[in-house]
Amino acid sequence: MQSCAKSWRVVISRSINARATYRNISNKGDVFKNLQGFNADVSANVRCMGTSQVLWSRKIERILPRHDDFSERHIGPGDKEKREMLNTLGLESVAQLIENTVPASIRLGRSLKMDDPVCENEILDSLQKIASRNKMWRSYIGMGYYDCSVPPVIQRNLLENSGWYVLTQYTPYQPEVSQGRLESLLNYQTMVCDITGMAVANASLLDEGTAAAEAMQLCNRQTKRRMFYIDPRCHPQTIAVVQTRSVFFVSLSLYPSVFVYLFIYLSVFLPICLYLSVSLTSFFVSLPLYLSVCLSVFKENLVRMMPGRMVGVTRDAAGKEVYRLALQTREQHIRRDKATSNICTAQALLANMASMFALYHGPQGLRHIAERTHNATLILAEGLKRAGHKLQHENFFDTLKINCGVAGKDILEKAKQREINLRLYSDGVVRLVNMLKINPLIGNKMSERTKGLLASPFKRTSKFLTHPVFNRFGSCTMKLNSSSELMPITWREFANIHPFVPLDQAEGYQQLFRQLERDLCEITGYDKISFQPNSGAQGEYAGLAAIKAYLNSKGESHRTVDKHKANLAAIMITYPSTNGVFEENVSEVCELIHQNGGQVYLDGANMNAQVGLCRPGDYGSDVSHLNLHKTFCIPHGGGGPGMGPIGVKQHLAPFLPSHPVVNMQSSNAESSLGTISAAPWGSSAILPISWAYIKMMGSKGLVHATEVAILNANYMAKRLENHYKILFRGSKGFVAHEFILDVRPFKKSANIEAVDVAKRLQDYGFHAPTMSWPVAGTLMIEPTESEDKAELDRFCDSLLAIRQEIAEIEEGRMDSRVNPLKMAPHSLACITSTTWDRPYSREYAAFPMPFVRPETKFWPTISRIDDLYGDQHLVCTCPPMDVYESPYEERASS
Amino acid sequence: MQSCAKSWRVVISRSINARATYRNISNKGDVFKNLQGFNADVSANVRCMGTSQVLWSRKIERILPRHDDFSERHIGPGDKEKREMLNTLGLESVAQLIENTVPASIRLGRSLKMDDPVCENEILDSLQKIASRNKMWRSYIGMGYYDCSVPPVIQRNLLENSGWYVLTQYTPYQPEVSQGRLESLLNYQTMVCDITGMAVANASLLDEGTAAAEAMQLCNRQTKRRMFYIDPRCHPQTIAVVQTRSVFFVSLSLYPSVFVYLFIYLSVFLPICLYLSVSLTSFFVSLPLYLSVCLSVFKENLVRMMPGRMVGVTRDAAGKEVYRLALQTREQHIRRDKATSNICTAQALLANMASMFALYHGPQGLRHIAERTHNATLILAEGLKRAGHKLQHENFFDTLKINCGVAGKDILEKAKQREINLRLYSDGVVRLVNMLKINPLIGNKMSERTKGLLASPFKRTSKFLTHPVFNRFGSCTMKLNSSSELMPITWREFANIHPFVPLDQAEGYQQLFRQLERDLCEITGYDKISFQPNSGAQGEYAGLAAIKAYLNSKGESHRTVDKHKANLAAIMITYPSTNGVFEENVSEVCELIHQNGGQVYLDGANMNAQVGLCRPGDYGSDVSHLNLHKTFCIPHGGGGPGMGPIGVKQHLAPFLPSHPVVNMQSSNAESSLGTISAAPWGSSAILPISWAYIKMMGSKGLVHATEVAILNANYMAKRLENHYKILFRGSKGFVAHEFILDVRPFKKSANIEAVDVAKRLQDYGFHAPTMSWPVAGTLMIEPTESEDKAELDRFCDSLLAIRQEIAEIEEGRMDSRVNPLKMAPHSLACITSTTWDRPYSREYAAFPMPFVRPETKFWPTISRIDDLYGDQHLVCTCPPMDVYESPYEERASS
Repeated sequence: MQSCAKSWRVVISRSINARATYRNISNKGDVFKNLQGFNADVSANVRCMGTSQVLWSRKIERILPRHDDFSERHIGPGDKEKREMLNTLGLESVAQLIENTVPASIRLGRSLKMDDPVCENEILDSLQKIASRNKMWRSYIGMGYYDCSVPPVIQRNLLENSGWYVLTQYTPYQPEVSQGRLESLLNYQTMVCDITGMAVANASLLDEGTAAAEAMQLCNRQTKRRMFYIDPRCHPQTIAVVQTRSVFFVSLSLYPSVFVYLFIYLSVFLPICLYLSVSLTSFFVSLPLYLSVCLSVFKENLVRMMPGRMVGVTRDAAGKEVYRLALQTREQHIRRDKATSNICTAQALLANMASMFALYHGPQGLRHIAERTHNATLILAEGLKRAGHKLQHENFFDTLKINCGVAGKDILEKAKQREINLRLYSDGVVRLVNMLKINPLIGNKMSERTKGLLASPFKRTSKFLTHPVFNRFGSCTMKLNSSSELMPITWREFANIHPFVPLDQAEGYQQLFRQLERDLCEITGYDKISFQPNSGAQGEYAGLAAIKAYLNSKGESHRTVDKHKANLAAIMITYPSTNGVFEENVSEVCELIHQNGGQVYLDGANMNAQVGLCRPGDYGSDVSHLNLHKTFCIPHGGGGPGMGPIGVKQHLAPFLPSHPVVNMQSSNAESSLGTISAAPWGSSAILPISWAYIKMMGSKGLVHATEVAILNANYMAKRLENHYKILFRGSKGFVAHEFILDVRPFKKSANIEAVDVAKRLQDYGFHAPTMSWPVAGTLMIEPTESEDKAELDRFCDSLLAIRQEIAEIEEGRMDSRVNPLKMAPHSLACITSTTWDRPYSREYAAFPMPFVRPETKFWPTISRIDDLYGDQHLVCTCPPMDVYESPYEERASS
Repeated sequence: MQSCAKSWRVVISRSINARATYRNISNKGDVFKNLQGFNADVSANVRCMGTSQVLWSRKIERILPRHDDFSERHIGPGDKEKREMLNTLGLESVAQLIENTVPASIRLGRSLKMDDPVCENEILDSLQKIASRNKMWRSYIGMGYYDCSVPPVIQRNLLENSGWYVLTQYTPYQPEVSQGRLESLLNYQTMVCDITGMAVANASLLDEGTAAAEAMQLCNRQTKRRMFYIDPRCHPQTIAVVQTRSVFFVSLSLYPSVFVYLFIYLSVFLPICLYLSVSLTSFFVSLPLYLSVCLSVFKENLVRMMPGRMVGVTRDAAGKEVYRLALQTREQHIRRDKATSNICTAQALLANMASMFALYHGPQGLRHIAERTHNATLILAEGLKRAGHKLQHENFFDTLKINCGVAGKDILEKAKQREINLRLYSDGVVRLVNMLKINPLIGNKMSERTKGLLASPFKRTSKFLTHPVFNRFGSCTMKLNSSSELMPITWREFANIHPFVPLDQAEGYQQLFRQLERDLCEITGYDKISFQPNSGAQGEYAGLAAIKAYLNSKGESHRTVDKHKANLAAIMITYPSTNGVFEENVSEVCELIHQNGGQVYLDGANMNAQVGLCRPGDYGSDVSHLNLHKTFCIPHGGGGPGMGPIGVKQHLAPFLPSHPVVNMQSSNAESSLGTISAAPWGSSAILPISWAYIKMMGSKGLVHATEVAILNANYMAKRLENHYKILFRGSKGFVAHEFILDVRPFKKSANIEAVDVAKRLQDYGFHAPTMSWPVAGTLMIEPTESEDKAELDRFCDSLLAIRQEIAEIEEGRMDSRVNPLKMAPHSLACITSTTWDRPYSREYAAFPMPFVRPETKFWPTISRIDDLYGDQHLVCTCPPMDVYESPYEERASS
C-alpha cells in the first residue's frame, strides 16, 4: 500500500504534516540503576579516549541510553496502537500472533546475533569513518565509468529530494498521480533517440553489461538464430556479462560480422549498447548514463519485444495528451505468459538525472561540453606525441590508447606516486580518459586545422535535442539561490564550530572573511567591513553608533541630530531612493553634510541597483550596511537568518564593533563602538552563500546583474504605464531597480484598494509585491535580475488583467462588493464547493490566465484572512485542543 | 515580486517545471585560437601539478572555457529577451539604459577588480579547501552555543529543502499562501510559552544578546525608568550587547534588583532571555535555540510593545481558524510611526527547526534528553570530585564550574593536546559543558539518591508541551526511508570512486561489504553473500546460474529442469508464498528436493515477513536473492536503482559471480558462474542505506519490524474481511505480511473491476496496491511495518467506503456506467469546471472522507488514462511541438 496523500506534504506547504514522519519515544527511566560494574576514575577514562573510544561510547550508551530509538521511528504503530490492533484480532500479544502465523518447525527460536543498535545521531559518524578509508585518487580508467559533474541543482532537487527518490512507488502504474516522473522518463527516451538517431528507446535498463545481454536475447527472440558475435574491443565486463548470459541462449563469438553484432562506437567512448544495422552520424557528447537499448524499428513486433519499461503518450478521459507506461504486458509480473523480459528494477532515478542533465545544458551546452572534452583530448594527444609516445588510433573522442615510449609499468608507477589511476593493457598499452582532470599537457602552436573528429567523416552534422522541451527557459525566484551557494552551510566545518574557538582553529573562516571583505570593499568603495551585525537593522544601528563614537572621539559629542549645522551628527540616505529613483544630486548632498561637520550614512538596502555601476564610498558616503540577504543571495528563509555587515571609510574603522570574548582586531579594543551581536562575526555560517555568489559571478557578472535588475524594472514599468500610474521617475524618465504602482485612485472609482489587488494576484499564482511602502496605498515592485522576461510578462499580464477587472467594476458591469478582487483569494475549498453563488464563473476565479492551470497552480489554502478579528482576539499560541480533533478519528473508533 | 506558482513545483510533482531554474548557454566557439602564449610540454606541466595547480586550472579555463557560466543562470533574461525588452523601452542597448538612469557624476567608469569567475562545478572544491582550514576540535566552551544534534530528517527536509529555506518570502504577509510556515512558528511560540511558563512569546529575534537588549528597551518603553540592572553572571557577550545598546536609552548596572532585572536561569544553561518577575518552575531541557522574548502579560499594552514578529490565530472569510502575523503595525516598515521596534530579519528558519525539533521528540523525548544530559553531568561531577577538584556550585544542570586541584592553565594545556576547548575564567576556574562529548568520567557506585536537580526544589513538576500538536504521530511511506540512511549516498567517498580502482583504495567499501555480508548471513542463515546482482531479477538469474554451475561441477549437467527426479535441477519457492501465507510444509518440500538431487532456490522477495523469525538457510534453501530495495530500505526511486544480492550455502559459494577486471575473491576464479553485472559489487553506492538500516535497527528492532509487518497485514485483513473476500489464509486463519482482496465478484454484481477500485483510491489520496498479481482481477495489499494504525485505518475506511459505493450500484441507486468509481480519478480540472453533469456531487467525488481535505489533498493531475488508445497509437518520444505551444505566449506577443 502506498499513500501519497500526506507523504508529499512533508516536503511541501503544510508543515504540520512533517509530523507524519516523526515519532516520540518514552522515558527510559533512572540511569543510576545501571551504574554497577563500571569502575572508572578520571585518569583511567581519559586514557581510553584513543582506540577504544567506540567501545566506551557503547558502554555509556548502556548507562545513559540515548533518547532516540530508531526502530520506534521506523515502525509505525506504537504500543497503544498495537494493543488496539491485537484486540481487533482477538489476540493477547504479538508473540501469539507469530505463533499462529509462522510454522513452529521453522521458527528461529533465538535472537539474531547482531551489534547493538546505533542511534540515528551516531550512525553517520560511524559511516564517515568507514568512508574515509576509501582513497580518493583521480581515476582515468574509463571503461564506461566517469566522474561526472552533477550540477548541484540536480543533486539537491532530484537525487536528494524525497519527492523524486524516496516517496516514489516502485512502478508508476497509476499514471494519473505520476505524470511528473513519466514526463521526465519520456524526455530521457527522446534524448537517447535524438542523440543516437534511433527510432525507439526504453526508459533505462540496469547497466551496460546487462543491457548488452538483453540486446542479445532480443536478437535471439527475433531471429531464433543461435550465433552472436561480439567485438573484442568492447569493455571486458560487458563481454563477460554477455558471455555469462549466452550460456543458456546462444553461441557467442568474439569476431565481427554483419548480421548480428554488438559493438561500441569509437571503441569505448559511448556507453550505449547499440546493435543491428544502424546508420549513426557522429556526434560529440559524453552524457552521464545511457543504459537503454535503442533500435531502428523495422518491425512493430520488435518494439513489443524490447526489454524494460517504456513511457508512451496517450490521452485521458478528458481527451488530454498524457503520459503512461506503454505496453505494460512486457513486464514480467503483470501477465507472466506474455512477458518478454524479466526486468522490474531499472535505473529510473539515474535516467531522470540524465534527462534533467540534458534539459539543464540543452543541445548547445552538450555540444560545447563534448567539443571541450574532445579539444582537451586533442591537446593531450599532441603533448603526448611530442614527448615521444605513440597513439594507437588517430580517431578518438575523449580516450587515448598509448604505446608508451617507456615501459607501461613505469608510467603506472609514476602515476601511482601522484595518486592517479590509469588503465594498463596486458600488452603494456596505457589508456587515458579525459585529460581535463589529469591536468595540462597542452600542445603548443597546434595548427588551426587540428580539429580531430570535427575534420573527419564522423563529424555530426545533424541537429539533436531540437525538441522545445530541451530549449526552454523559465525562472521563478526572487533572486536565484543556487544549490551550489547553499550546500556549504551544512558542512560541519562551517556549521559545527564554536564561535569563540581560538582563531587558529578558525583559519578557514578568517580566510573567508578576508576574501569577502576585500570584494565587498571593492564593490562599495569602503575601506573596512564589519561582519558582526546580523540583520539590516543591526547594521543601521552599528553604523550610526560608529558615527557617534567617531564624533565623540573628536570631542564633538554634542552632535546628536540630523538638522542644524552646529549639532549635525549625520544624515541617512537611501540610494537609489525608496521611490525607485537615482537622484542626480547625491554627491552634492554628501558634500554639504561633510562641510557642516556631519557624517553620511547610506542605507545599503538598494545596493542591488548599484553594484559595479557606482560606489557609495566614492560619491561621499561614510558608512553603509549591506543586506546580504537582499543583494548577495542569502535566501529569505521566511524572515532570516540574515546578515547586515557594515562598510566604512577608513576614519570610522577604529570604531567598528568589538567582542568581549574574541579578540577580533586588537587595534580597536579601546575605540570600538562596543558589541552589536552576541557572536563576533554574526551569523557567519551563512556567509559562504554570499562568498560563492560573488566568486561565481565575477566582476562582469555582477555588473550585468545590476544592469538587468534595472532593465527588468524599466521594462515592467513601461508595460504597465498606460494602465497604472507609475509614481516617481528619474530626470530622464527612467526608474531604478524598483518602482511604485499607484492604485489609490481605484478606491474611489471602484472601491478597490491595494490589498484587493494583492489578494487577487494570489489567484494568478503570485505573491503580492510590497504594499504601502514607502507610499501608503501603493504597490512597490522590485523584479530583480533573476526573473526572466517570460515571468515578467506573466506578472505584467496578470496586473493588466486585474486592471481590466477593475474597469468592469468602474463601468458597472461587475458588482463593487461581490467581484473577483473583493472575494480573492479563491481557495480550493471555495472553488470545488457545490455551492457557487458568485456572479462570475469558477474558472474566471481560479484560472484567470491561460498559464494558471489546474495541474500546476499553487493554491491559497484558505480564504481571505480577517485581520480585524485577529487583532481583536489575540491568540498567539496553538488553538485549543478541540480544533485538532479529527472527525475521522471519531468515525474510526465508532 | 515573488512568484509562487511554479517555484513550488520544482520540488513537487510536475518535473517539467524543474526546467524553470535551468538555463542553457551558447557555444563558446573554437578553442584553438586561444592557444597562443602557452608554451608547455608534458614534463613541464606535470611539474606544475603541485602548488600551482589552481593557477594552471585558471589558464586551462582561458584556453578551454567551461561550458557553464553561472551569471547566465543567475540572471533571468537572455540576449534575445534583453533585445526585446530594450525595444519596448525604445533603447539601443543596456549601456544606453544605464546612461539614462544612473547619474554620470557618480558612475564608476571602470570594471570591478575581482577574481575571474569560478564555475559552479568548481566553486565547492575551492570552498572545501577553505573549510578544511577550520579545525574541528571538541568545544566545551558553552556560553550559549552548543553543538546540537539536528535530526537528519530536519536537516534534509527543512534546512536543506528549498520549500522551507529558499523559496520563501522575507515576511509571510500573505497568510493565504503561507499557512505552513505560520503554523510552524506558532508551534514555536507555544513551545516557548509552555516550557517557560510565560503567557506570550514572539516568533524569534536575532540572538541572545540582541534579545536581551530588546527586552531592556521594552522595559524602558513601558516604565519610562532609566535604570536597568543586569546579573554579572550573564554571558559576557550578552552583557556587552546590552551595554552597547544602553548608551542611548538607560543606565545600566551589573547588580541584582527586584524590579527590572535581566538574569539567566541557573546561571548559564538556558539560552533564553527572561525578565520581569516570573515564577518559573524548573524543567530539564536543552533546546537548540531560544531567542524569543517571553513575558507574563500584566498589560495587554505590553504585548503590543513586544519587538519582533508574532504569529496569531484569526479566521478567514469562510470562518475557518487560520494563522497570520499578528499586530503587523509593530514592524517598522509598515507604518513607521506606530512601529515599536526595528526588527525585520529574525531567525525564522532556526525557529522553525527548533519547533520541528520539539515535534520530533515530544515532551517525553525532551525530558529524556534533559535528564540524560543532567545525569551525565552528575556522573562527571562525581568523577571530578573524586579526582580532587572542587565544584563552585552544587545546583547545576549541564555545566560545571570547577576550582581545579591543579592550575587551570595546566588543565587547558592537557585539553589542548587532546584537541578540546574549555572555558577558562580569569580566576583560573574551568568550565565544562555536556559531559557526553568529553567522554566517560563515570562515577562509580554513586548512590541512588544522587538525583541532582530532580531532588531539589527546582524540579519541574508541571507538565509541558501537552498540546496535541506535540503528541501526535503519523506515517505514510512504504517503508520509512530515513534521511540518515540516505545522506551518505552523495558523499564523495562513496559516490565518486571508480568501481575498478585497486582494492587498497576501496577499503571503506570492503569494510562495508564485510559488515553487511555478516549481518545478512545471520539474517538469512546463509554462509556467503554476493553483492554483484543489482536487481531482483539479476539475483534470481545469478542464483540459478550458481546452481547450474554447481551441478555441472558435480558432473550432473543433465539436471536442467524442475520436474522428474533424474533431471531435477532446482525448485524455486516464494516464501511466505505470494498468496500471503506461511505454508507449513516448506521444510519437507526442501528435503524432498534434496533427496532427489535438486537444489532449492528461495525467492527472497518476501524476506520482510521472515527477518528474525525464520531463516531460509535453516529450513532447507540453498540460495536466495534479497531485494534490498524491498526489505532493507533502499527507496524505490520510481524503479531503481536497486540491489538484488544473493545469499548461498557453503557448497554454492565457489560458484558466485566473479569479475573480469577486479579480482573479487581469488578463490573462485575457476569455478565462478561468470559475471552478472558490469560492476563487481553492483550498485554499491546505495549499499550504505541498507547498512545504516540494519545497524540502527539492531536485532530487536529487525524482529519487531517483521512482527509488526505481519500484525499490520492481519489487522487490515480483519477489518476488511466482512466486506471483501480475503483469498488464502494460513492453517490457523492468519495471513503473513500481505494478503489478497478479491474484487472479482463485483464485475458481475456492479460492473466494477479492480482497476475501478484502484482509480477510485486515488480520489481518497492513496496509490493503488498491486493489481492482478498473483491472481488476475484481485488486489494485493502489503502494508509493511512503517505504516501506523491511523494510516491503516484511513486506508481500510477508504476501502469500506468504496465497498459502500459499489453497493449503491449493486442496489440500483447509482448508475452502473456514470458513478464515482467508473469516473475516477477526479482531476482538479474536472472538479473545478463550471460544467458538472454527474449524478453525484463535486464533494462526493473529490473529498469522499473527512480526512481528504482541499488544503492537503494530493490531486491526480489528469483524468483516467486511456490504455487502449495508447497501445494502438504508440508514441514513445515527446509529442510534437505544437503540444508545447503556450497559448499565453501568443497572447503575450500580440
